[in-house]
Formats: sequence, C-alpha cells, structure tokens
Amino acid sequence: MNSPTATLLISCPDQKGLVAKFANFIYSNGGNIIHADQHTDFAAGLFLTRIEWQLEGFNLPREIIGPAFNAIAAPLQSSWQLHFSDTVPKIAIWVSRQDHCLYDLIWRYKAKEFPAEIPLIISNHPDLQEIAEQFDIDYHHIPINKDNKAEAEAKQLELLQKYQIDLVVLAKYMQILSQDFVSKFPKIINIHHSFLPAFVGANPYHQAYQRGVKIIGATGHYVTTDLDAGPIIEQDVVKVSHRDDINDLIRKGKDLERVVLARAVRAHLQNRVLVYGNRTVVFE
Amino acid sequence: MNSPTATLLISCPDQKGLVAKFANFIYSNGGNIIHADQHTDFAAGLFLTRIEWQLEGFNLPREIIGPAFNAIAAPLQSSWQLHFSDTVPKIAIWVSRQDHCLYDLIWRYKAKEFPAEIPLIISNHPDLQEIAEQFDIDYHHIPINKDNKAEAEAKQLELLQKYQIDLVVLAKYMQILSQDFVSKFPKIINIHHSFLPAFVGANPYHQAYQRGVKIIGATGHYVTTDLDAGPIIEQDVVKVSHRDDINDLIRKGKDLERVVLARAVRAHLQNRVLVYGNRTVVFE
Amino acid sequence: MNSPTATLLISCPDQKGLVAKFANFIYSNGGNIIHADQHTDFAAGLFLTRIEWQLEGFNLPREIIGPAFNAIAAPLQSSWQLHFSDTVPKIAIWVSRQDHCLYDLIWRYKAKEFPAEIPLIISNHPDLQEIAEQFDIDYHHIPINKDNKAEAEAKQLELLQKYQIDLVVLAKYMQILSQDFVSKFPKIINIHHSFLPAFVGANPYHQAYQRGVKIIGATGHYVTTDLDAGPIIEQDVVKVSHRDDINDLIRKGKDLERVVLARAVRAHLQNRVLVYGNRTVVFE
Amino acid sequence: MNSPTATLLISCPDQKGLVAKFANFIYSNGGNIIHADQHTDFAAGLFLTRIEWQLEGFNLPREIIGPAFNAIAAPLQSSWQLHFSDTVPKIAIWVSRQDHCLYDLIWRYKAKEFPAEIPLIISNHPDLQEIAEQFDIDYHHIPINKDNKAEAEAKQLELLQKYQIDLVVLAKYMQILSQDFVSKFPKIINIHHSFLPAFVGANPYHQAYQRGVKIIGATGHYVTTDLDAGPIIEQDVVKVSHRDDINDLIRKGKDLERVVLARAVRAHLQNRVLVYGNRTVVFE
Repeated sequence: MNSPTATLLISCPDQKGLVAKFANFIYSNGGNIIHADQHTDFAAGLFLTRIEWQLEGFNLPREIIGPAFNAIAAPLQSSWQLHFSDTVPKIAIWVSRQDHCLYDLIWRYKAKEFPAEIPLIISNHPDLQEIAEQFDIDYHHIPINKDNKAEAEAKQLELLQKYQIDLVVLAKYMQILSQDFVSKFPKIINIHHSFLPAFVGANPYHQAYQRGVKIIGATGHYVTTDLDAGPIIEQDVVKVSHRDDINDLIRKGKDLERVVLARAVRAHLQNRVLVYGNRTVVFE
Repeated sequence: MNSPTATLLISCPDQKGLVAKFANFIYSNGGNIIHADQHTDFAAGLFLTRIEWQLEGFNLPREIIGPAFNAIAAPLQSSWQLHFSDTVPKIAIWVSRQDHCLYDLIWRYKAKEFPAEIPLIISNHPDLQEIAEQFDIDYHHIPINKDNKAEAEAKQLELLQKYQIDLVVLAKYMQILSQDFVSKFPKIINIHHSFLPAFVGANPYHQAYQRGVKIIGATGHYVTTDLDAGPIIEQDVVKVSHRDDINDLIRKGKDLERVVLARAVRAHLQNRVLVYGNRTVVFE
Repeated sequence: MNSPTATLLISCPDQKGLVAKFANFIYSNGGNIIHADQHTDFAAGLFLTRIEWQLEGFNLPREIIGPAFNAIAAPLQSSWQLHFSDTVPKIAIWVSRQDHCLYDLIWRYKAKEFPAEIPLIISNHPDLQEIAEQFDIDYHHIPINKDNKAEAEAKQLELLQKYQIDLVVLAKYMQILSQDFVSKFPKIINIHHSFLPAFVGANPYHQAYQRGVKIIGATGHYVTTDLDAGPIIEQDVVKVSHRDDINDLIRKGKDLERVVLARAVRAHLQNRVLVYGNRTVVFE
Repeated sequence: MNSPTATLLISCPDQKGLVAKFANFIYSNGGNIIHADQHTDFAAGLFLTRIEWQLEGFNLPREIIGPAFNAIAAPLQSSWQLHFSDTVPKIAIWVSRQDHCLYDLIWRYKAKEFPAEIPLIISNHPDLQEIAEQFDIDYHHIPINKDNKAEAEAKQLELLQKYQIDLVVLAKYMQILSQDFVSKFPKIINIHHSFLPAFVGANPYHQAYQRGVKIIGATGHYVTTDLDAGPIIEQDVVKVSHRDDINDLIRKGKDLERVVLARAVRAHLQNRVLVYGNRTVVFE
C-alpha cells in the first residue's frame, strides 16, 4: 500500500452502469483498486463515489488521467476531483489565544496522522508564537480590529499564496471571516464548539449551560459565507451533569474539539469528504 | 432496603451547616439514611439536596414528618418536597399513532422498572387501543381538531382527576398542550425527538436530515408553557451517516426516544429530579 | 426502491479488476445497482463485496442469475451468496424466562424493521407462552435437563425443519447448544450479555460487578461450536458507576441487549454481514 | 471557591448517624462544606464518603484537624484520608517510546487541569528526552534489561524519593514493575490499552483485531502487584469496524488512552477516588 495512489471523488446524476463504467476505466488501464465506495442519495437523485487505485502499473501517465477520465465523466454530467497521494497538501493553522487544538494538530502532524505539511500559523494574537517556535513553524501575527479587517484579510490571503496553502484550519480562531475572503479561499475547516445547529454564534458553552443541557458537542465543518452553517464533516458529544459548571463545560469541550477537528481534517486530507449541497458524504 | 423509605428533595440559599442540620433531623429521630447527595450551584447561590432514609425505626409518624421538617426548613427559606416510597404514583400515558414508546413504557412497568401504576392511556387517535386492551389498561380516545381543543382538554383534565393521575407522560403525543392546561396540570414529561435546543418544533428528523448532521438526539424534559423549552431531564444521541435517509433517522430515533423517555420517567418516579429555574439536578 | 432486489455477497482472493468484473455482470445484464460496497483485507489478501441491484429490468431470470454469476466467480476462486429481497426468511426466537429481547424483537417485527417472519418461539420454560399468544406466534415448550439434551435438540431440530426456519435468534436463551446441533443448524445469532471477550461464560454481570468495571457491554454474534467465541456482528456499551449494584447492571444491560441483538439480526436479514475466518464485515 | 479547602475521604462500616456525625464535625468547627457525597455499598456493608470544606473560617488549625477527626472516626472503625487543596502533589511520568500520553499530560498540566507539579520524567529509552527539554522537565533515562531490573528499580525509587514524588503515572511505560517495587511505592496509575479485563497482557490491539471486536477500549487503573488487575478508575471506548486495521486500532486507541489516563489522574488528584477491595468509588 505504500505505492502512490490516485483518488477520484465523483458525483453525478444517478443512472445505470456507473459503477461498471468508472471501475472499467481503472481496470482497462491496468489499475488496481484498493478502495471503492459508492453512495446513492435517492432523494437527490445523485450517485457519489470514491475510487482509489495504485499508480504503480497504471498505464496512463498522471497528466493524462484527468483528461482521459473526463471523456467518460463529461457525458454523464458528473463533477469530479482527482488527487494523488504523494502530492502533500499544505495547511495553515489559524488560532487566537487557545492552544489545545493547535498542540493537538501539531502532535498528530508529527505522529504522521496527517498526510500534510504545516508550514504556517496565523493568529490575531501573539500568545502562541512560542509554540510555533518550539516546533519550528512560521508564525504570523496579524491583529484584527473593527477598522482593519479588509487590510488584515488581504495580508492573510497574501500569506496563503506565498506559502502555497491548500487548506486553512481554524483551530479556535475566534474571528469571523468575510464573505469576500471565503469566496477567494474556499478550502477552510472550522471547529465550532457546540453540537450545531444548537448554540450557533458566540459563547456556545455559556448558552449550553443556560439551557441546562445534559450533553455538549462539537462540530467540524467547512466554512461557507453563511457562518456556522457550512457542510458538517464530523460531530461528537460528551455527557455533562449538574456538577459541571461553565468552566467544566469548557474543559470537557476542549477534549471534544481536539478530536472532532482532527477527524474532520484527516478525512479531508484523505480525500474522503465529498460535499454536495450543504451535506457531506464521508467515505469510510 | 425493602423497608419503605422517605425522601426529601430540598433547595435553599447556600449557607453553612445545611448538611449537618438536615442530617441531624433524620438522625435525631432515629432514621437510617440510605442515600444522601448534595449539590451547590455556586453561580445561583443555591444548595440542593436529596435525602432518603428508612421509615422503619424512624420515630416520627408520617403525617408529622412534614410539619416537623418545616420547622427547620422554613427559617432557611428552603423549598422542599416529601415522598414516601410506598405511595405508588399513577401515570397517564398520552399517545398519538406511534407505539414504540408506549410498548416500552408498559414493558418496563411490567418488569417493575417503574415504581408506579399505569391505569390510563389517552390518545387523539384510536389506533393503539388494541395495545391498551392487550395489557388491560383503560384507553380513552379524545379526538383533537382546530375547533375542539378547549373542550378536549377539559375532558382530558377530567380523566386525570378521575384516575387520580400524578404524572402525564407524553409518549410521542404529537399535539401541543395549551398554556392553560399546563398551568392546571404541571407534572408532565415529554420526549422530544431531537437534541434540544437543536430542531425545535415540528419534524425534527426532517430538519436534522436537511442540515446534514452526523448525530441525532432525543430529549426527555418537563413540559412548561413554553413549548420544547422546559427543564431537561435526560438526553442521549446516536451517530448517523450519509447512508441514513429520513426513514433511517426515524428508525434509529425510536430506539433513542424509548430509552431517553424511560430514563427521564424513572428518575422522576424515584424522586431524583430537582427542578430549579429552567434547570434540573438529577441525583444519581 | 420498492422493486425487489437481488444481493450478492462475495469474497475472493484480491486481484485486479474485481470491481469492474462484478459491476459489469450486473450492468451488461441491464441491472441498476442501488448499493455497492467493497472492502479489501490486505492482511488476509481478501476482497469482500456486497452488491445489490433492482430485479426490475434485469435481463436474467432469477434461476439463471446464480449459474451465470458462477461462470465469472468460479475462476476467481470466490465464494458467494445470492439473496432476493422478496424471499422473506423465517426466524425462530429461542428464549428462557426473560422477556425483554423477545418483546423487542416482536415489536420490531410488527414495526417492519425486520424483513422476516417470526412463526415460532421455542423455550425451555413455559413462562413466556402468554406473550406468544398475545402476538399469535406458536410457542413450543421443550424442557431441558442434564439427561434429555440430545432428545430435546432432536425435537428442536424437527421444529426448525417443520417451520422451515432460516435463522435462530437466541434471545436470552440460557442454555448451551451442543456442537452437534450447531453443525446441523449453523445459522444462529446469540446475544451475550457482556463485552466479549471480557466475561465469557455464566453470569457476566456478576463478573463485571466483581471486577469493578466502569462500562458494561453486550455482544451480538454468530454461534459456533466454540461457545461465546463466534464472529462478532455488533457490540455496544453503557457507562456504569459505583452507584450501580448488580441489579442495576442487569437492568441497564437489558436495554443494551435489546438494541444490540436487534441491530445484529437486522444486519443479517439485510444480507449486510459477511463472515470470513472468525471475523465479520458488516456493510453499511 | 479559591480559598484553600480540606477534603476527607472516609470509609467505615455502615450504621445510623454517619452523615450527621461527619457533617457536625465540620459545622461545629465553623466549616463551610462545598462538596459532600456519600455512597453505601449495601453488599459490602460499607459507608463511603467525601467531604470538602473551606479552610477559611474553620476554627481548627490544620495540624489539629486529623487528630480531632480521629476522635470521632476511630470508634466508628473508619479509615480516612485528609488532603489540603493547596498542598500540590508531585507527579513523575514514566514513558517508553510513545509520546502521545506524555504530550497530553504536559499540555493539561500547563493548562492547569491538574492541581499538581510534574518535575520528573523517567524512561527506559532516550527517545522522548527532547520533549522533556522543550518543557523544562528533568528526564532520567534508566535502561531496563533482563539482568538489571532490580538495580534499575532501585535507581527509580531513589529518584522518586529525591524528587519527593507523590504519584507515578505510567504513560505507556511498557515494562512490568516488580511486586517489590509496587509494595514500596504503591501510588501508581497505569493506562492499559484495552477494555479490561478483555485483552490483558501484551499487544491488546493485536488481540482485539484477531478477535474481530467492534469496539476497543482503554482503562485507567491503580497498579497492584497483580498486573492489569488493579482497581479501575476510568474506562472509555470507541467504535471500530472492518475498515480498521491494526494501525487504525492503534491510532484510534491513542486518542482514547490520552483522555482516559487524564481523567483517571485528574480524579485522583482531586481526591475523588476511594479504593476499597478491588473497586473504586469515583465521587463526581
């Protein structure tokens, strides 16, 4: 399995023969499929699939795979993405003052849980610079206030381009991105510290405490221009009781946030997430 | 432990000596405490406790316990309830057309999980009459429409009085009770088929499906005049995926609803739930 | 999706082109695949797949599908099963004295969660006969003691044949089946009231209590000649604490057992379980 | 709540008046109880309690509290421990080569989740020295082989004394401690990477994979002279499927191990764990 692989993520209107057509494309070119999963959303009339195969022994050169596949895919009105496992994506982690998700992401990166590089950390505060230095990652402090948002986002965008970033991970970055920014750089994963759509907006743990819930949650999702409403990738929860005050909710929530964000990022990096409408298929 | 017990549920402003004062009341009268649990809500400045002791060997006759305790409790500005374990409360189960919670509650009742009797089932549909007959429980069909709500609620209230009902359990009763009714009969537990406060109102599974959540939940709560906003007793969740369509959510939800409602009802019947504000302490 | 479907469960040594070959078989005969899932166990060198397609519009008559597919499958050294969704399997439920799993299975059967019929209940005790009558299911009381086991199993086997039973569900049947019986009727699902392989053998809740565990579990598994060691289909757990005595473990365990057994039976009936070695693939 | 507190953990044969006697001791000396919890193990005939009160305003000087309480406790044949919240215990973390639990414990320590200091890391390998340096904690590499175990344990014991260590946390320390060592230093918490008592001994994830389980677990427990059999403090689990190979179990297990070990250590440090026999009460 250490040979590099190619992965196709495909969605198209459901019709007969799709599994066969896509599998034939791989097989007829000498490819060995190591993972294939399909899902049909009957309500939406959509067929969605993920196919991963070994490049070793595959007859098409990489630059030809896309065009060759498109000859099959275009008549089916499908939309598709092609990824190579040895093209290592670059992540920028954005933080504010809290360090738990940052530490966790860096630890997983070092533990090789993420097929990615993390060359850049951006923050609106200087607090976590030391951690960046500990792990030898560039840290850029870009303060945000009411008046400089557009300017700050321009700097951020410039950094993303300079570092050739493929994915922004908002690891408890407590600022709202402008619609303009999101439309210019749409690959963003956020961790929201509640079980969305409960407790949208600011201070979800305080909201949860006020409501007297017996369970708190966290949500890993793609960021869209509609705040806290993007496609959900991963959610998990933990039980709480009357014994837990707001600080306990925050503490327990941190453990959740770390693992939920990490699972969402990992699924994305393994090209296991297919977005359609405001929903996701997360292939296992 | 088979000797009958008395249970006090007490809440009062926090101050020194409360545990000692309440425990002394029991001990000085010869009582053997078999369960005592305290909680202090520091934010609210409230002390909340549950004390259960054996009546065997207790020196005060039952009718004196309340007044005697009040002599201690009143100066502390406490509010309290006194329950005896051999006073078996009567439950009315209200249903519409779905039978899963009804079957489950009846099975638990027969399995002696509930220290209660279930003499009455009320429904706005005739569908579940057969189940009532199977288990020899009276079934009253009271149709509801736009025009007869007040009249129907009058009949319902009359039945609750006639059967000397202590607790109404809304076991998927898909109707909204009027504020008037709730103020007249305030002991009502409902199962809401979502993780409140997400997806309040009608068709929560449809809402959950539309939002693309990865977890669904159920909430057992007391009914107040503000629909779906009463104090939460119990919540639980189950994971779902893109494989689950709305019917799957409904099916998986039924398993959740059964167990969450049952836990809420059982906690209430064991006098383990103390409501304060819009929150509950559920003593273990 | 209401059109009848055919389902193939296939396992064979891994090699190139399997997805394409199997999908082509369906497509070239006009079939519309509504579910396809593959798994490769690289350690075992095995490819395992489930393919379900609509029979409407499929060009091969039912009786030809197996032989036709075998022409493809045999050279690949695959083993396979073919199921039709409108061939309704018959289940016999075996019980002793506890009724919770029995009630639950019957309720799900009535709620159409199981694509199956339940014409037969067998028990070594007369206690649950009344439930069988309530739901109009035949109940056979076959007492078991040290001396009559062979004779009793002969009677049981005879009943399974008479009722044309496809699957035996041991719903808290507290007897051990002989190796001889299991080899003669190998389609048996059991619920073991522990998280296997912890607490094999008798009285697992007592064992769990003695060990002081903080979580208890239940396991739905196929029965093999090695007791409590068959392939696991489904497991789930629930938290317990020092507050829970053995009766609480038993009570909480019942809720687990019901749902774990039901999920295992449902997965089996939907032909989503593929056994290989002592392991299962449970296709989602 | 920032005033220092005293905590009593008491166990004694059950009898009337215990709650009152213990609470009176605090109250009559001017103490304000901020947490009190009781549990009666009826099977064992034992009363177990935790009482925490503010030292501010308490009339007894610290050094008198123990003797004064013993005058009450001794006649009741109780055993008890007294802890002060501002006496910060010292932890030594023992590791081998894996860093996930070490990183996690250090992060929580820095995040003030643990009321403790971590001045010492001991390892049988040099690999994690760099992490110790990163966080400015002393690291002692004490290699272990077949022949030097007694000598190595003598060095370890010497270090524990030199650093005045109160608690040893085995954070994936893959060596077995001798009975002699455990009897000399009995305050040890271990993380076992399985749901004990399933999969005791070496390589539990490999064992779990072989058995084909659908859930894996982790167990935080005190170490006794009987390996993997000490009193359990905390357990948790995560679902796995046929998609997960041994590396996936190990990866998913790491997330479990981190959080289970941390919860066990935190409960111990907050004096919420009372051991009796081979069981624990973990007060909430």
